Amino acid sequence: MTGIVTKNSKRMVFVSGRAHPELARQVSESLGTDVAPTDAYDFANGEIYVRFGESVRGADVFVLQSHTAPINEWLMEQLLMIDALKRASAKRITVISPFFPYARQDKKHRGREPISARLVADLYKTAGADRLMSVDLHTSQIQGFFDGPVDHLMALPILAEYVNRKYRDNRLAVVSPDAGRIKVAEQWSASLGGAPLAFIHKTRDIHQPNSTKANRVVGDVEDRVCVLVDDMIDTGGTIVQAANAIMEAGAAGVVIVSTHAVFSGPAVDRLKNSVVSEVIVTNTLPLSEDKHFDKLTVLSIAPLLARAMREVFEDGSVTSLFDGTF
Amino acid sequence: MTGIVTKNSKRMVFVSGRAHPELARQVSESLGTDVAPTDAYDFANGEIYVRFGESVRGADVFVLQSHTAPINEWLMEQLLMIDALKRASAKRITVISPFFPYARQDKKHRGREPISARLVADLYKTAGADRLMSVDLHTSQIQGFFDGPVDHLMALPILAEYVNRKYRDNRLAVVSPDAGRIKVAEQWSASLGGAPLAFIHKTRDIHQPNSTKANRVVGDVEDRVCVLVDDMIDTGGTIVQAANAIMEAGAAGVVIVSTHAVFSGPAVDRLKNSVVSEVIVTNTLPLSEDKHFDKLTVLSIAPLLARAMREVFEDGSVTSLFDGTF
Amino acid sequence: MTGIVTKNSKRMVFVSGRAHPELARQVSESLGTDVAPTDAYDFANGEIYVRFGESVRGADVFVLQSHTAPINEWLMEQLLMIDALKRASAKRITVISPFFPYARQDKKHRGREPISARLVADLYKTAGADRLMSVDLHTSQIQGFFDGPVDHLMALPILAEYVNRKYRDNRLAVVSPDAGRIKVAEQWSASLGGAPLAFIHKTRDIHQPNSTKANRVVGDVEDRVCVLVDDMIDTGGTIVQAANAIMEAGAAGVVIVSTHAVFSGPAVDRLKNSVVSEVIVTNTLPLSEDKHFDKLTVLSIAPLLARAMREVFEDGSVTSLFDGTF
Amino acid sequence: MTGIVTKNSKRMVFVSGRAHPELARQVSESLGTDVAPTDAYDFANGEIYVRFGESVRGADVFVLQSHTAPINEWLMEQLLMIDALKRASAKRITVISPFFPYARQDKKHRGREPISARLVADLYKTAGADRLMSVDLHTSQIQGFFDGPVDHLMALPILAEYVNRKYRDNRLAVVSPDAGRIKVAEQWSASLGGAPLAFIHKTRDIHQPNSTKANRVVGDVEDRVCVLVDDMIDTGGTIVQAANAIMEAGAAGVVIVSTHAVFSGPAVDRLKNSVVSEVIVTNTLPLSEDKHFDKLTVLSIAPLLARAMREVFEDGSVTSLFDGTF
Amino acid sequence: MTGIVTKNSKRMVFVSGRAHPELARQVSESLGTDVAPTDAYDFANGEIYVRFGESVRGADVFVLQSHTAPINEWLMEQLLMIDALKRASAKRITVISPFFPYARQDKKHRGREPISARLVADLYKTAGADRLMSVDLHTSQIQGFFDGPVDHLMALPILAEYVNRKYRDNRLAVVSPDAGRIKVAEQWSASLGGAPLAFIHKTRDIHQPNSTKANRVVGDVEDRVCVLVDDMIDTGGTIVQAANAIMEAGAAGVVIVSTHAVFSGPAVDRLKNSVVSEVIVTNTLPLSEDKHFDKLTVLSIAPLLARAMREVFEDGSVTSLFDGTF
Amino acid sequence: MTGIVTKNSKRMVFVSGRAHPELARQVSESLGTDVAPTDAYDFANGEIYVRFGESVRGADVFVLQSHTAPINEWLMEQLLMIDALKRASAKRITVISPFFPYARQDKKHRGREPISARLVADLYKTAGADRLMSVDLHTSQIQGFFDGPVDHLMALPILAEYVNRKYRDNRLAVVSPDAGRIKVAEQWSASLGGAPLAFIHKTRDIHQPNSTKANRVVGDVEDRVCVLVDDMIDTGGTIVQAANAIMEAGAAGVVIVSTHAVFSGPAVDRLKNSVVSEVIVTNTLPLSEDKHFDKLTVLSIAPLLARAMREVFEDGSVTSLFDGTF
Repeated sequence: MTGIVTKNSKRMVFVSGRAHPELARQVSESLGTDVAPTDAYDFANGEIYVRFGESVRGADVFVLQSHTAPINEWLMEQLLMIDALKRASAKRITVISPFFPYARQDKKHRGREPISARLVADLYKTAGADRLMSVDLHTSQIQGFFDGPVDHLMALPILAEYVNRKYRDNRLAVVSPDAGRIKVAEQWSASLGGAPLAFIHKTRDIHQPNSTKANRVVGDVEDRVCVLVDDMIDTGGTIVQAANAIMEAGAAGVVIVSTHAVFSGPAVDRLKNSVVSEVIVTNTLPLSEDKHFDKLTVLSIAPLLARAMREVFEDGSVTSLFDGTF
Repeated sequence: MTGIVTKNSKRMVFVSGRAHPELARQVSESLGTDVAPTDAYDFANGEIYVRFGESVRGADVFVLQSHTAPINEWLMEQLLMIDALKRASAKRITVISPFFPYARQDKKHRGREPISARLVADLYKTAGADRLMSVDLHTSQIQGFFDGPVDHLMALPILAEYVNRKYRDNRLAVVSPDAGRIKVAEQWSASLGGAPLAFIHKTRDIHQPNSTKANRVVGDVEDRVCVLVDDMIDTGGTIVQAANAIMEAGAAGVVIVSTHAVFSGPAVDRLKNSVVSEVIVTNTLPLSEDKHFDKLTVLSIAPLLARAMREVFEDGSVTSLFDGTF
Repeated sequence: MTGIVTKNSKRMVFVSGRAHPELARQVSESLGTDVAPTDAYDFANGEIYVRFGESVRGADVFVLQSHTAPINEWLMEQLLMIDALKRASAKRITVISPFFPYARQDKKHRGREPISARLVADLYKTAGADRLMSVDLHTSQIQGFFDGPVDHLMALPILAEYVNRKYRDNRLAVVSPDAGRIKVAEQWSASLGGAPLAFIHKTRDIHQPNSTKANRVVGDVEDRVCVLVDDMIDTGGTIVQAANAIMEAGAAGVVIVSTHAVFSGPAVDRLKNSVVSEVIVTNTLPLSEDKHFDKLTVLSIAPLLARAMREVFEDGSVTSLFDGTF
Repeated sequence: MTGIVTKNSKRMVFVSGRAHPELARQVSESLGTDVAPTDAYDFANGEIYVRFGESVRGADVFVLQSHTAPINEWLMEQLLMIDALKRASAKRITVISPFFPYARQDKKHRGREPISARLVADLYKTAGADRLMSVDLHTSQIQGFFDGPVDHLMALPILAEYVNRKYRDNRLAVVSPDAGRIKVAEQWSASLGGAPLAFIHKTRDIHQPNSTKANRVVGDVEDRVCVLVDDMIDTGGTIVQAANAIMEAGAAGVVIVSTHAVFSGPAVDRLKNSVVSEVIVTNTLPLSEDKHFDKLTVLSIAPLLARAMREVFEDGSVTSLFDGTF
Repeated sequence: MTGIVTKNSKRMVFVSGRAHPELARQVSESLGTDVAPTDAYDFANGEIYVRFGESVRGADVFVLQSHTAPINEWLMEQLLMIDALKRASAKRITVISPFFPYARQDKKHRGREPISARLVADLYKTAGADRLMSVDLHTSQIQGFFDGPVDHLMALPILAEYVNRKYRDNRLAVVSPDAGRIKVAEQWSASLGGAPLAFIHKTRDIHQPNSTKANRVVGDVEDRVCVLVDDMIDTGGTIVQAANAIMEAGAAGVVIVSTHAVFSGPAVDRLKNSVVSEVIVTNTLPLSEDKHFDKLTVLSIAPLLARAMREVFEDGSVTSLFDGTF
Repeated sequence: MTGIVTKNSKRMVFVSGRAHPELARQVSESLGTDVAPTDAYDFANGEIYVRFGESVRGADVFVLQSHTAPINEWLMEQLLMIDALKRASAKRITVISPFFPYARQDKKHRGREPISARLVADLYKTAGADRLMSVDLHTSQIQGFFDGPVDHLMALPILAEYVNRKYRDNRLAVVSPDAGRIKVAEQWSASLGGAPLAFIHKTRDIHQPNSTKANRVVGDVEDRVCVLVDDMIDTGGTIVQAANAIMEAGAAGVVIVSTHAVFSGPAVDRLKNSVVSEVIVTNTLPLSEDKHFDKLTVLSIAPLLARAMREVFEDGSVTSLFDGTF
C-alpha cells in the first residue's frame, strides 16, 4: 500500500471573544493552558476584525464568548471567529455561550415574530460550529434548536455548595418566583437537604375586574431563610417583588440565587435597596465595577466550563456535569 | 421575447393518511372538496405502499395524518405520502399533524437521549414538507424545531364555546393539573369570563423522607364547578388524581377539558369511574367505539383545520386562528 | 503554541435495537465486546423511548437493527437511536440494516408513487448516520440512494460454503427464479464449481389471450439437485411455484437458498409443504419459534457483520467482504 | 394592508446547449415558440462561456442538452447554463437530458468506484436544477438519485407506432438481447398486439471449462420478423451478435429498435454490415452525416419532449407520457 | 379532479429595519405604497425584538436595512426580520442592503482570518433570504458569495446625471484614487462624454529605503475639474490626500463622487477642510445632522431601489439597472 | 464500559487524475510515497471510468488534477475521483487544483451570466471535497466561493528565487501588465530587493475619438531588465504587447514571469518571436513537447505542493506557504 502513516495526537485550543476577558483568563487557568493569542478590533464603522495568532490546524477548538450588552456585537464577533477557525482547518469547533443569546425568544408568542433562539443556533451552525456548550438554558428545548451535540451545563452544584456551606445552620426554604419554573426549585430542594418548597403565585382578584396582579406565596416560608432561585436576573423587578412578598409572608430572610446576572437598567439599584440579604450569581456575564455592591457574591463558572471542556476533549464518560444529572 | 405566457391559477388538494378517515371526511366537508383519491395498503411484511389517484402537479397540497397508535406506522405513511407528493411535482406541501408525534420528547431530560420531536420535524423536512400545521403543541418551542412556517392552531375557542354554553349558569373555576402549565389556564380563565384560577401542587412532606407525593389544590375551588384543563390525556392517571383532589377540596364538580384524547391503556376505565362529570375532548385522534363512554363529549376539530387550510391557501390575513391570539 | 496535546485512541461501540436481540448477541460475541447497554421501551401510545447506558463520546458507533414486522416501528427506533448518538457526540455513526427496509420500492413503477428506499436512505442521513452497512440489497442501485459510504456485504460465501459442504457429492444446477436476476445466479455458479445455470421463464400463451402465466424452466436441470437462489423470500408463492416447475422438468431435487427470510403470511406453510428438500437462509431477520420447520436451515450472518465492522473500524484494506468481489 | 397587488401570469422559456441544435429546433417548433437566444462559446483553453440574450426573471425554464461526445463538455455547459438561470432569477429550472449522462454507472460494481449517475444528479441539483426530464433511463432507479421530481418519458409509443405501421403484415416476435431487460420487452409485446417474446441467453458449456459464451435464443422466433429492442446502442457489438443468433435460430428477419443511438467507434460499420434489415432509433443524440446509413431510420423525440414540457408547465394531469403508464 | 381552484394574484410588501427610516420613507414614496407596519425595539440587555403588524402570507417581501454603525446591531435586526418573514409564510424574501456589510473583508489577506463578506451572505441565506439586492459592491466577486440571485445596482447613472448637469461647462477629468479601481473610472469617463482618465499612483523612492509613500498623479489633470470617484468614503484620509495630489498637479478643482458615505471618525472634518469643492454622495447610509456640511450634496438612491424592486416583483426584463450594463 | 479501544494512526494517500502525470510523479517524489494506483479510462462515448487500486478507508486523501484543455474532461474526472473516495470511506478529501478551473469567470460582468468559479467550488463540495488547495488564484475572493478551508499557495518564492539567482547582477524593474494587478507587483518588488515598480497603462487619445488603445509604461524602466509578472499567460497577446511597450520605453530587456502557462492558440509563436529574452513559468499545467521553446524555463511547483500537503496532513503550523505571508 502507498501512503504515509504517522501517529495521531490531538490538540485542544481555547480562544475567546473580547466580551469577558476575565472569564477567559479563569477558564484558561483552570485548564492549565493559555488562551490562544487573538487579534480582534473594531473598524471605524463598527465592522469587527479578528485573526488568530497561531495555527489551529487540526485542533479541537473551543470558542468562548459572553453575551452581555452590546449583545449583537459579541454574537457577530463569535460568528466571525468560528468562520475563521473553519477556514483555518480546525478539526472541531465547540461554541461556548454560557448565557445563550436570545434564549427568551424561544417561541412565537404571537404571529409574525421570529424564533430568535433558533435563528442564533442556525447562525452558529452556518458559521461552522460543530457543537454548543451553554449553562442553564432558559428552556431545555433550546437544545433541540441546534442540529448537533449540546453540552448543557448546570450551575446548581456550584451555587448549592456555596449556599449549603454558608447557610447550613439556617432553616431554609426554596422559593421559585414563578409557578412555571418549579421543577428547578425541586432540584434545589434536593441539593439543600430536602428544604421545603414554595413559589410565588401571581393572582388577580376576580371580584374586582382590572385589578393589578398581586404576588402570593404558596408554601410555608415562615421563619425560614428563603433561597429564591431563578435562571437570570435582567431588570430585577420581578424577583425583588417576589422577595418582598416572601418577607411579608413572615420569612426570616431572603437570599437570591441566579446563574445569569444580566443586571440591565435599574437592576443593581433595585437589588441593593431590597429586603434581600445576599444576591448570589455566577460570572457567566461580566459585571463592571459599578455593578458590584455589598450584598453581591459572584461565584466563578470557570472551573465548571474548564472541566466540561476537558471531558469533551478527552471523550470523557463523566456525564455528571451535563443535562441535570447530578 | 420568446416563450409562452399563460394565466396562473392555483389549486388546493387535500390528501389524508389512513389513521383517522372520519376526521378527513369532516375536513373535506368543511372545505367543500373531496379528499383526493389515494391508494394505500400494507405489504405482508409491514411495508406501506401509497399512491395518489390523480395529478397533484403544481398543487398546494395538505397532508393530514392523525398520530394515534401504532404511531410509527402512521408517521411513516405520512412521510411516504410527502415523498410521493414531492416527486409528483406538488408546488407546496403542508403537513397537518393535529397531535404532533413525540411532542413530549422535546428535550433531553438526561444525557444520551434523543430529542425526538426535533427528529420528527427534521424527518418531515427531509421527506419534502414545506410547512407544518398542528394543534396545541405540547410546548410552543416545538415550532422552533421546524425550519419553516408552522401554523399553530388552538382548540381553546372550540372547547371554551362549548363550556360557556353548557355551564354558563354555574360558578366556574379553572384548574391546571400542573403548576408548569398555568399560563394555559390563564387563557382559559379569560375565555370563561374571568373565572378564578387554581392548580394542583404536588407536595412532599419534608419531615418524612421518602414519603409519596400528595396533590394539594392551590386556589379557591370550594363550591365551584371546576374546569380541569390539559393539552392531552394519555393514561389518565394524573388528571383523575387531580380531579379527586379538587373534589376533596370542596368543589361542586369537575369537568375535564383536553384537546388530545390519547386514551392509552387504562384511561377510559379511569375516566369512566372517576368523580368527573364530563370529559370534553376534540377528535384530533380517533376514538374507536370501545373508547366512548357516557360522560365523554367529542368536539370536532375539523372546522378549525379547514378554516386554517383555506387561510393558508388564500394567503389570508386572519391570524386569529394561530399562535394563541384570539 | 498554546493548547493541550494528548495521544489519540479510538473506540468502537456496538448498539442494537430491540428487533432481533439474538443477532445482536451473536455479533457481540464475534466482536468480542458486549452490546452497549441501552434502555428502550414503548410508551402507552406507541411512542418509543431510547437511552444509552454509557458514554459514546467520540466513539465509532455501529447501530444494528433488523427490519422485520412491525417494520416501521423498528425503523423509527433506529432513527431515534441515531439521533441520540449524534447528540451524545458520537464521532461516526454506521447504520447496520442487514435487510434494507423498503428495498423493493426502489423506483417509481407508476406516477405519483414515492421512491421509498431513497426516502429511507434520506431519513438515516437526516437522523445523523454517516455510513450504511447492509447485506444483499435488492438492487445494487440502492447504494446510490445514500450520500456517503455504503458497505454492501454478500451472504453468498456463507451460504455457498454450506451448500458446497453438504451437497458436494450431488450433481448440482443453479436456478434463478427470475430472468432479471440471472447475474446473481452466475456468481453462485462460480461458487459451486461451475454448476450449470437455469432460470424460470414466465410465459404466456399468445394464442390464447388472457391466459395465465406459466413457469417454464430454461436450461438443463434434469437429474440434478437444483439450488434455487433468491435474495429474499416474502410470502413464498413465487419461489414454491418455481420449485414445482423445476421438479416437473425432471430435477432430482430442489434446495432453496435465500439471504433474507421475510416469511410473511403463508410463507412457512407453503415452504413446509413444498417439494423442496431444504430451505437455507440467514438470520438477517428474526424467525420466531413458530416459523421454524424441519427443512429449514438458518446460518448466522453475525460473523460476516462482525468482520466487516472490524474492517471499517480499523480502516482495513480487505475489500473481499464488500461489493461482490470475492 | 400595505403593498402592491397585481395579477400573476406565468411564462415558459426554452433554452438549449450547443450539442444538438437540430433537436432544439424541432422541440421549439413543436412548442410553437423560439429557443431563447443564448450566447455560448469556448475560450482558447476550453473553458465555456454562456449568457442568455433575454430576461428569464420569474420564468419556468427548460434547459435541453444532448449528451453526446464530448459528453463532459456538454454536461459542463448545461451546468453553467443552470447556474446562470438560477442567478438570473428563473422561477423554476427543469433539466432535459434525453440521454442521461453516465447512466450506466448507476452502482458500484466493485469497491472504490464512483456512482457516477448519482454524482451527475447531485451536480444538477447543486447548479440549481429543480426538476429533471429524461427518456428511457438505463435503470429506473436513477429517478431515485435526484432529490426532486423526475419526468421519466418513454419512447416506446413513438417507436411502436412506427413498427406497427410498417410491419403490420408480418408475423412479429419481440426479442430482448439480455435476460435482465425482459420487462421492457413485455411492454413492447403489449404494444405490438401481443407478439410473442424471446430473449438471448448467454451460455457457457460447463463440460468445457473456459469456453467462451454463446448466445442462445430462448423462445420461438422461427419464421418471424424479430423486433430486437434495447435502450441504447453504443459500440453495437452485443446487439449485432444477438441479431446473428436470432437469424441462426430461423427468424425471417431482424429489426433493431433502440431509443438512444450512441453509435461509438465501430457501431455504424457493424450495423451497416449486419444481418439486420432496419435500425430504428430516436434523435435523443445527434447523428452526424457520416453516421447515417441506408438501413437507419431516425424518429424524432421532439414532439414527445414538447408535449411533456407543456404538461409540466401547465400542471397538466395527463400522466400517460410518464413512468411507463401508457 | 378534486381540489379548489382559484385565481392567483401576487402582492409585494416592503419592510424596513430601523437604521435609516428616511430612506425607507423615500423608497415607499417612490413605490407608491407604505412601509409595512413593524414593531421593533431593544430589550434592556440589547436583544432586539421585531414583529410585523400585518400579514405577509404569500407575499413577495423586500427587507431594507442600511448598515451604518452600530453595524452588527442592524445586521442582526435584519436577520431577525428575515426569520420572522420566513416563519410567517412569505413567498419570497429579497434582502436589500444598499451598503453590503463587511464587503471589504472579501478575502483572506493572511492566514487565520475570516472571509466575513461570505459569512454575511451565508447568514442571510440561513435566516431565509432568497435574493439579495445591493448597490456598488466593493468587489463584484461578492455576488458569488451568495447562492442565489443578486441584483447588483449601480449608482453611477444617478451621480453622473448630477455631475453632467452641474459641471457641463467645465473641462472635466475622471480620477481614480487607486490604480486597482480604474475600470470604474473608465465607466465614469464614458458617462461624462469621454472625459480623460487619470489615477493616483502611490510610489516609493527606491533610492531611499523606508521612505513613505507619495501620491503621484498619472494622467493629465492640468486645468481640469477633476471628478475623483470611489465606491465609499470611510475615514476620508486616502481620498483627501488624493485630492491634494490632484490640486498639486495643476488641476482647476476637485469634486469627490462616492456612492457610500460611511463617514467614520475624522471623515467629516477632513472633507470639510479639504481642497475639494464638492462632495457628492448617495444616501445608502444615513447621515445625521452633524455630518452634513456645506460642500456636501446627497442624492437619493431611493428611486433606483424602488425601480429595481418593481422590476424584480414584476419579472421585468429591463436589465439596464443591473450589473453595470447601462 | 463496553467497546473496543485501539491506537489511532493516520495515513496520507495521494491520487492523481490523468491530465498531468509528470507533475504527479514529481509531487510523489517530493513526498516520498507513490501515487496510489488508479484505473482511469474513457468509454467509447466519452464517459470516464475511475477506480482506485487500493484501500483509502480512513485516509487523508489529496486529489491532484491539472486543468489544461480539455478542461471539462479533467474537471469531471476529478469530480468522479472525489465521489469514489467519499464512497470508499476516505476520512478527508483535499482537492489540489493548481490552476483553478474557470477562475476568470469569478463574477457576472453582465446580467444572465453564470459565476462559473463559484459553480466549480460548489461542484467540488457536492462531490465530497472537504478542502481545496490551489496556486495563485486569479482573484483572492475565489477562496470565499468554497465553504471550507482553502490553502492558497503562492509560486512567487519559487519564481523569485530563480530570478534573483540568474539576474542578480542586473538592474531590475518589476512591471505589471495591468494597473489592476499592481499589488502582486509590489510583492515581487519586495522579493527582488526593492526593485522599482512600473506598470502598463492602456490609454485612449481623447482628442481622437474611436482611436484604439495604446500601451503606455508608467514608471521608470529605462536601461533596466524588466521582470513582467502576471498570474497566467493564455493566448499571450496582452503580455507580448506589454513587452513591446517596455522595450520601446528604453528597457534593457524583458523577462516574463508567470505562474500558469495556459499557452492557448498562438501563445507559443507569439512568445517565441517576441522581444522577450526569457519566459519563466511553473508546471501547474502540462506543456507538451511542441509547446517548449528555447527561451522557456519551467520551474517545478511540485516541491511547494508536496510541502503544503505535508503541512496539511501533519497539522503543521508553518503558514509561510499560504496566503501570501512570506
